[in-house]
This record gives sequence, C-alpha cells and structure tokens, in this order.
Amino acid sequence: MFRNSRDRFMAFSDGVFAVILTVLVLEIRLPTGSQLLSSSWLHFAYAILIYVAGFSLISTYWYFHQKLFSQVHRLTGKLIVLNFYCLFFISLMPILTQVIAMDPLSKSRSFIYGLVYLIFNIYLWWLFRVVEQLLRHLKPWTPVERARANHQIAIVRNTAIVGLIACLCAWIWAPLTPLILAFSPLVRDVTKIF
Amino acid sequence: MFRNSRDRFMAFSDGVFAVILTVLVLEIRLPTGSQLLSSSWLHFAYAILIYVAGFSLISTYWYFHQKLFSQVHRLTGKLIVLNFYCLFFISLMPILTQVIAMDPLSKSRSFIYGLVYLIFNIYLWWLFRVVEQLLRHLKPWTPVERARANHQIAIVRNTAIVGLIACLCAWIWAPLTPLILAFSPLVRDVTKIF
Amino acid sequence: MFRNSRDRFMAFSDGVFAVILTVLVLEIRLPTGSQLLSSSWLHFAYAILIYVAGFSLISTYWYFHQKLFSQVHRLTGKLIVLNFYCLFFISLMPILTQVIAMDPLSKSRSFIYGLVYLIFNIYLWWLFRVVEQLLRHLKPWTPVERARANHQIAIVRNTAIVGLIACLCAWIWAPLTPLILAFSPLVRDVTKIF
Amino acid sequence: MFRNSRDRFMAFSDGVFAVILTVLVLEIRLPTGSQLLSSSWLHFAYAILIYVAGFSLISTYWYFHQKLFSQVHRLTGKLIVLNFYCLFFISLMPILTQVIAMDPLSKSRSFIYGLVYLIFNIYLWWLFRVVEQLLRHLKPWTPVERARANHQIAIVRNTAIVGLIACLCAWIWAPLTPLILAFSPLVRDVTKIF
Repeated sequence: MFRNSRDRFMAFSDGVFAVILTVLVLEIRLPTGSQLLSSSWLHFAYAILIYVAGFSLISTYWYFHQKLFSQVHRLTGKLIVLNFYCLFFISLMPILTQVIAMDPLSKSRSFIYGLVYLIFNIYLWWLFRVVEQLLRHLKPWTPVERARANHQIAIVRNTAIVGLIACLCAWIWAPLTPLILAFSPLVRDVTKIF
Repeated sequence: MFRNSRDRFMAFSDGVFAVILTVLVLEIRLPTGSQLLSSSWLHFAYAILIYVAGFSLISTYWYFHQKLFSQVHRLTGKLIVLNFYCLFFISLMPILTQVIAMDPLSKSRSFIYGLVYLIFNIYLWWLFRVVEQLLRHLKPWTPVERARANHQIAIVRNTAIVGLIACLCAWIWAPLTPLILAFSPLVRDVTKIF
Repeated sequence: MFRNSRDRFMAFSDGVFAVILTVLVLEIRLPTGSQLLSSSWLHFAYAILIYVAGFSLISTYWYFHQKLFSQVHRLTGKLIVLNFYCLFFISLMPILTQVIAMDPLSKSRSFIYGLVYLIFNIYLWWLFRVVEQLLRHLKPWTPVERARANHQIAIVRNTAIVGLIACLCAWIWAPLTPLILAFSPLVRDVTKIF
Repeated sequence: MFRNSRDRFMAFSDGVFAVILTVLVLEIRLPTGSQLLSSSWLHFAYAILIYVAGFSLISTYWYFHQKLFSQVHRLTGKLIVLNFYCLFFISLMPILTQVIAMDPLSKSRSFIYGLVYLIFNIYLWWLFRVVEQLLRHLKPWTPVERARANHQIAIVRNTAIVGLIACLCAWIWAPLTPLILAFSPLVRDVTKIF
C-alpha cells in the first residue's frame, strides 16, 4: 500500500517557497557605475521597493500556508491538488515581479500584479474555510479554538481587502501597489487590535 | 558503522523537486513592451502553456514519488541508485522545456519532449512494481491494501498511456503535446471512476 | 484552530540559507581563455575572495541561526516576524556581492558591504538577547547554562566587532573588507580562548 | 542555553546538495536550430557528458555525506566547521563545470577539474576516519559493525583512486576525465565484489 506523506508535503512546499523567495532577489539589477547621476538609481530604488513587496507577500503567504496545514494530520489527494494550485500561484511571483520591474510606472502592469495577488488571496481565504470545515468534521472545537480559527480567517480576509485596495491604487500612481503590498504583513497586527 | 538515512533521502529528493519546479518558471521570457502587437504575445502564451505542462508533470511525479517511498522504511543502496536515475530524469526538465520553448511549433521537438516523459513514466511504473515486490516481501498485504496498491500502479500506467498519446499527437499539431501533458494530473481522478 | 509549526519554520529558513549560499557561487564569472595574461585573472582572484567571504558570512550566520532557535520550542508570531527580517538581510547577500564584485577596489562599495553586515550582526546580537530573555522566562537556567549562553552571545558580539573593523578597513584598502570577513568564523575559536 | 541542532544541520546540507545538483543543469546550453550541421551538436554532446559527470559526482558525495553523518547524534562545533569545508568544495562544482564546459578539449582544464575532486575525495576519506574515531570513542563496535565501517571507508578510498586515474587520463584525451568520473558511482558495486 502506498500512502501520502505529510512530512514530505510540508518539506516540498517549504522548498518551493524558499527558492521562490531567493529567486526574486536575482531579478534586481544593479545600476552600473557610469550611470551614477542618471535615472538608473531611481530604477534601482523601484527595484528594491518591488523586491520588498515580493518578500512581504511571499513571507505572508508562507505564514498563512504553515498555519493552514499545521493541524492537518491526514492528507487527502484533494488537499495535495489544492496545495499545488497554491504553489502554482506562488511560482508566478518571479514573472509578475519582472512584469512590474520592467516598467514600474505602468498603471496596467501594477494592476495586473495586484490583481493576481488579490485572486490568490481570495483563493487562500477559500482554502482556509475548506480546511476549517475538514478539521471541524474530525473533532469538535472548543469555543476558544473556534474564536482563534475565526480570527485567523479574518486576517486572511483582511489581507485580501488590502490586496483589493492595492489593486485599485495602481490607477492613482503605479508604485503605490507594491508600496501597499510591502506593508501587507502589518494586517496581522491590525486585525489583532480590532 | 554508517547507515543510509531515510529522512535525508526524502529531504534531498524534495529539495531537487522543489528547485526544478521553480527553475522552470525562470525560463519564461516576457514579451517586451514595444512588441505589443507582434507575435511575441503568442510566444508568451506558448511559454505559459509549456510552463503549465512542466508544472503538471513535476507535481504529478512528486506525487508519485512520495507515494512510492512512503512505506519504504529501510533504504537499500539499490533503491538510492534507482532514485538517482529518477532525479536525473526530473533534472532534465529545464532543458527539455528549453527545447520545446525555443520552437513551440516544431513537431520533432514536441515529440522528443513527450518521448522523454513517456520513457520516464514507464521507468516510474517499473519502479512502483519493484517497490511493491519489496514491500510484499517484508509483510503480507491484506486484500484492501493489495487493491489500493494495484489502483495506485494503475494510475501510473494510465499516466504513461496519456504520455504515449501526447507523444503521438505531436505529429498532428506540436502544441498538443504540452496541452495534453498539462492535463495529465487528471488521470488520477479518471482512474478512480473506472 | 491553526498553529505555528516549528519544524516548517526551521525547514523554510534552512532552505533560504541553502539557496542563498549556492546562488552566491553563480555570481563568479570565469576569465575567458583569450584574456590569459590580462587583468581578468586578478578579477577572478577577487571574485574567489569575495565568494569565500560570502560563504564564511552565510555559514556563520546559519550557525548562529540554528543555535538561536534550537531551544525555542513554541514559536510566537513575533519571533516569526523577527526571523523574516533576518532572512531579508541574508537574501540581500547576492546583491551586495554583486556591488563589491563589480568594482573590488572601490572603497565606498566595500564600506557599504561591510556596513550592511555590521548592522545585521548587531541585529543578530539583539535577537540573541531577545531569545535569551524568552527562554529564561520559561524555565530558570542553571549557572552552567547561563555561562554557556553568555559565551554564545559574546561570540556574536565579537563577530560584530570584527565586522566593524572590516568596515573601517575598507578605507585603507578595499579588498581588506572581504579578506577580514572571510576569516570571521575564527571568532568562535578565539572567543573560546579568552 | 543554545545548542547545535542535528536536524537543521542535515536539512541545510541536503538543501545545498539539492540546489547545486539542479544549478548544474542550468549550465547546459542548447544548440540553436540554425547550427544543426555545425559543431554545436558535438559541444552539446560534451555538455551532456559533463552534466552526467557532475550529477554522478554530486550524487556520490551526497551518498557518502548521508552515510558519514547518519550515526553522529551529537554535533560538535568542529564537525559543523568540517562540514562547511565539505559544502564549500561541493559549491565549487558549478564553476568547475563551467571551466571544463567552456573548452571540453583542453587537457589542463580537465586536469584541474579532476584534481579538485581528487582533493575533495581525499578530504572526504579523512573525514570518514575522523567520524569513525569519534563514533568508536562513544560506543565500542561489534566486529560486524567494524567490518561494515571499514568496507564503507574502502569505497571512499577507491573512489579517490578512480579520481586520481581520471585526473591523469586528462593528459591522454581531455573528455576522458568526465567520462571516467561519470562512472564513479560504480565504485561502490565493484568494492562489494572484492
């Protein structure tokens, strides 16, 4: 008999997250020395901003991902497939970063960038609800556990709302999208307050 | 005394799968802005199709790989060597993707791409039978376990058949090969029905 | 209920460290054959020196990182965030290596290179103190444990002092900075003596 | 108190091995379509040979590495440092592959390639003896265990001898070096016979 291995599922996902995170940094191009006073330093600043935004997003998603599967002790084939869709979105990060890095002032590019993350965030939110149902089904939750789970799902929903705002702000000024997304990890702390 | 370490065997394999999966995405080249109306967007669409095909294949193979070794608790040197052949095939994925991405309409290139995966799939099928024999040898299986193992091996065999079809379809229209391979994970669900 | 997973936290961090370490080596450019007698071999020697410095720094930081979290059995959200800042610094290594490799004799570039690592070292030192407080809070330490923890923190502090020296030496001769940083792992052994 | 973590030591090493293995494949350049009849296909054949050699070497070293540390349950700082030297050698693989791939017929380049692996193999052999002494010190070995350990060390020594032969054969015909190294995993089976 062949079974699904939970440990390898986690190790593989972590590997993909770790490689994507470090691949992002390879996209940053340094301004060459002779262009010290030209616009290349401004492009470099945009590149750093875009990198920070990418780093924030991937670390936020990794954080959600490890929370999501922390209590899933028995993997079904369906969860593995849903996780691969999740990794597929994550793996698009380097291309999306390229899309936005090639022309940081293009409003449509920033919008596409924001939109993909908005869609991913909604997908992640839906995934949390799927896993929540699965876990509840296995073992009834205490009120404290239910409150914590609801709080966690609220964080994911609020992150999606921030994604929507970032997406719309692209039409005001393109670099606003990565700027807002760079601060998206703060959603976790803000949700705690309310 | 020095022994083989099962955990490290898994961690190493997962690492290779994860890096290969993310290296694939680096192959995608974005169309540059000035070519908006030229054929570069069509090439971009092909690149995305080829990426999805590669992603599907690697995730399918990882899925098979983790099932394959999930019940192997004692590693022999022979299994490690067989696994390295397996990782060797997987590591060819980025080159094969390059082969097909350089000329997505070339029938012979698509055929080679499909052929290598067909060979790999047959190898994987054989590997499942080797491991099955090994596991049976250690502990007799219950009828339920035997049925599940046979079902799993049937999935691998059917994936190989889909690989053969994809391979042959290259001669009809080259992009059919990645298109069919992109949907190869569905084989698992279709096998369930019959 | 969703929880933080300590194992995945470690696996993810190790993955980032491992990828960054190997990405560094990709920056090294070989001198081409026709330039055998030109200055390209000198640049190659600088590239090797810078690679060794990067390798030393990352291995030192990994060493500190694994010591730091070895006794943290329950992860708080705050520690995960602090760790992401840590990984962010580490992920800047390939760009910094590019900065210094593009002009190994530039004093200001070497200074920036040294400065970032000095700041990171001070951050790491502070992180050790945070974790120390956290661990002490959970369980009182024996005098031996306290002495060992203090010794460990002294190593991190001394590494920061070496970073400061490397930083200042950039103004004497630029390649001194990577040269001193290449030997920074020796701080551990020197601290043992005193 | 801060301790060394054995699990993370393994995970980190596996990560480095996995990334280096997959980085190797990125070095392979495909012949472009218009050069179908020129010498580019010969260069492609050399590239594949060099890739297979690199894959063989890294998988052999990983195999040795996991055997080496399988019974080390308590890590000392010294072992971590010795392992970092080991990873340093491994991380040079992509550059060495570049050295040899740029001119596959250069005898001196093949010699350098072979020489570095010979030195690494001797280092690995010495490391096995260090760990053997360490393990014996902790717990007396039974005759069977001692025989197995000696057998394992003999495999590493014989691999070093094959490395020496590969190194010297570079002066006969340059591609002999990668060719012999590509078959170096067979040393394990040959040692079994005698």
